[in-house]
Amino acid sequence: MSKNRIVLALGGNALGNTLTEQMEAVKGTAKAIVGLIEGGNEVVIAHGNGPQVGMINLAMETAGKTEAKTPYIPMSVCVAMSQGYIGYDLQNALREELLDRGMNIPVATIISQTVVDGDDPAFKDPSKPIGSFYSEEEAKELAKEKGYIMKEDAGRGWRRVVASPRPVDIVEKETVKALLGAGQVVVAAGGGGIPVRSEGNHLAGASAVVDKDFASCVLAQEIDADTLIILTAVEKVAINFGKPNEQWLDTLSLEDAQKFCDEGQFAPGSMLPKVQAAMQFAASKPGRKALITLLEKASEGIAGKTGTTIVSG
Amino acid sequence: MSKNRIVLALGGNALGNTLTEQMEAVKGTAKAIVGLIEGGNEVVIAHGNGPQVGMINLAMETAGKTEAKTPYIPMSVCVAMSQGYIGYDLQNALREELLDRGMNIPVATIISQTVVDGDDPAFKDPSKPIGSFYSEEEAKELAKEKGYIMKEDAGRGWRRVVASPRPVDIVEKETVKALLGAGQVVVAAGGGGIPVRSEGNHLAGASAVVDKDFASCVLAQEIDADTLIILTAVEKVAINFGKPNEQWLDTLSLEDAQKFCDEGQFAPGSMLPKVQAAMQFAASKPGRKALITLLEKASEGIAGKTGTTIVSG
Repeated sequence: MSKNRIVLALGGNALGNTLTEQMEAVKGTAKAIVGLIEGGNEVVIAHGNGPQVGMINLAMETAGKTEAKTPYIPMSVCVAMSQGYIGYDLQNALREELLDRGMNIPVATIISQTVVDGDDPAFKDPSKPIGSFYSEEEAKELAKEKGYIMKEDAGRGWRRVVASPRPVDIVEKETVKALLGAGQVVVAAGGGGIPVRSEGNHLAGASAVVDKDFASCVLAQEIDADTLIILTAVEKVAINFGKPNEQWLDTLSLEDAQKFCDEGQFAPGSMLPKVQAAMQFAASKPGRKALITLLEKASEGIAGKTGTTIVSG
Repeated sequence: MSKNRIVLALGGNALGNTLTEQMEAVKGTAKAIVGLIEGGNEVVIAHGNGPQVGMINLAMETAGKTEAKTPYIPMSVCVAMSQGYIGYDLQNALREELLDRGMNIPVATIISQTVVDGDDPAFKDPSKPIGSFYSEEEAKELAKEKGYIMKEDAGRGWRRVVASPRPVDIVEKETVKALLGAGQVVVAAGGGGIPVRSEGNHLAGASAVVDKDFASCVLAQEIDADTLIILTAVEKVAINFGKPNEQWLDTLSLEDAQKFCDEGQFAPGSMLPKVQAAMQFAASKPGRKALITLLEKASEGIAGKTGTTIVSG
C-alpha cells in the first residue's frame, strides 16, 4: 500500500519572532512532524514567514539608509532569504528528531517559487502591509521614488502594501516529487514561495506575498497529495465562534463550508483563507481531504480523532 | 553509457557585488553551464558567496545597531540566507537558458550544510576576516561581549576573524544524489555550505566559513562525480607566473602538483587552495579528474582542449 502523502502548512508565527525563539520552537514542531512520519506518512512541510521576512526586510531597508549603504533588496529576494533562514533550523530540528528516533531519513529544504498571475485582481488593490513604518512625508517620497503603494496603517504610521494574489503553480514541484519518491522529507514553499510572474521562459520577481495556506494547497494538488493539513491555533473550526451557540466542527462538507463562508462565519485574514484553501484542495479530486487543527493534534487528526476534516461529496 | 557527473565550483565574485550585477552575471554563467548539460553531462553547481554574505552580514549588523534593533544573526545563518539570495537568481537563469534551448529540466537549490571538525587546527588560529570594520574600542567591546576574535586589518580598522576549517561532509549529499538520479540540475553547497559541527545527532552552527573549492571537492567525492571543475580567472594554471619562464600547464600529475605547491608556485588564498582541492579530488579514486579553467572554457576543457587537468597516476 502506498503511503499517505501529506502537505503540512505551518504558521510563521509558530516559528517564533527571533532566532532564539525559532531554534526553540522548531524542536516542538519537529516532534509533531516526526510523529506523522513515524506513523507511515510521507510529509512535505510548507511554512509561513511573516515575522521572519518582516525582520529581514526591516534590516535590509534600515541598513540601506545608513552609511553602510547596503543595496536595495526587493521583497521577493527577502522571501528567498527567509526560506534559507527558516529552512536551516527547521530541517535540522527534523533531522535530529528523526535520528533520535532511529530514523535515518534525509531532510531537504528547497528554494521555492510560486507563480502568480499578473492579471490577478489582487494587483489592482494591494492590501497586505509589509516592512517598516514611515512618516507621511517619507511614505510620499517612497511612492514617488520607487513606485511603492503606501497606506496609512491604523494610526501607527505609513507602510508599503503589496498584493496577495492567488498562487497558480509551484515551480519546483518536480523536485519535491522526486525527493518524496526517494523517501526524503521536504521543506518547500516557505513563506508561500517566492512570488514570480511568468514572462515567456523568464520568471520575474513580483511585488507580492503569497498566502502560505493557498500555496500549500496548490503544492498538495500538484504533487498529488492525499491530505492537506492546515495548522492553526485552535483544535477545530467553529461556527458562531465565541457566541452561546458556538459549535466546533468535526467534519465539514464543501456545501456547508461554502454556506458558512457566505455567512461570514470565518474571520478574513485568519480562519477564512484556511477554510477556503482546505475547500479548494478537497474539491480538487475525489478522495482528497483537508484537515484543520493544532500541530500537536495532527497525528490524532489524521486518525480521524480530532480536528476539522473537509471532504468533498 | 552513464553520463559524466560534474561538480562545478563557481566563484562568488563571478556573481557580482550587487543584486543588479548578480541578475546580469548569472545569465552568462547559465549559458556556460547549460552548454555542459547540453553536452550530456550531469551537473551540480556549487558557488562562493564572499561579497553576498558580506553584504547580508553587514546589513544585519548595521540594522541591529539602529533603532530597528533587528536581532543578532550569526554567520552560519547569514550563509543560509545567502544560499537563498544567490540560488534564487542562479536557478532561474539556468531554468530560462534550458527552456530557451528546448530542455525542460528541473533546477533546484538545496539549503546545504557542511560538517567541519571542531578540532580542526583552523579553529586555533582564525584568520578569515568577515563583516564590518570597527574602531579598536568597538572591537575590544565586541571581543568582551560576544567572545569574537578581532584583528586589525591592514590599517583599515578592526574586523572579526573566523576559522576556515576543512570540510568533512556535506549533510545533504543524499538529496543531491536523488535529484541527479531524477535527471535534475542541482545548486548546492552554496558559500561552501553552512558550517556546522556534529554534536551527537545535533548539528550546531559553527563560527567559521568553509572554502567553496574544498566543499565542492568533498561533495564531488560523496556523490561519486567523475569530474570536479574549479573555475577561476585564468584559462590554465601557470608556474613561474609573471616571470620570463612562465609556463601554462595542460595537465598536471599529483606528484608535480605537490612539488609546485611545495615550491610556493601558487598564491595562498587564490590558486593554492584551488590546486589543493583539485589534487584531493583527483587522488580520491582512480579515474577521477579535476579541471581548473575559465567558466566560458569549461566545455572545451571537458573535451580536453584547454584548461589544466589534474589526474592521478
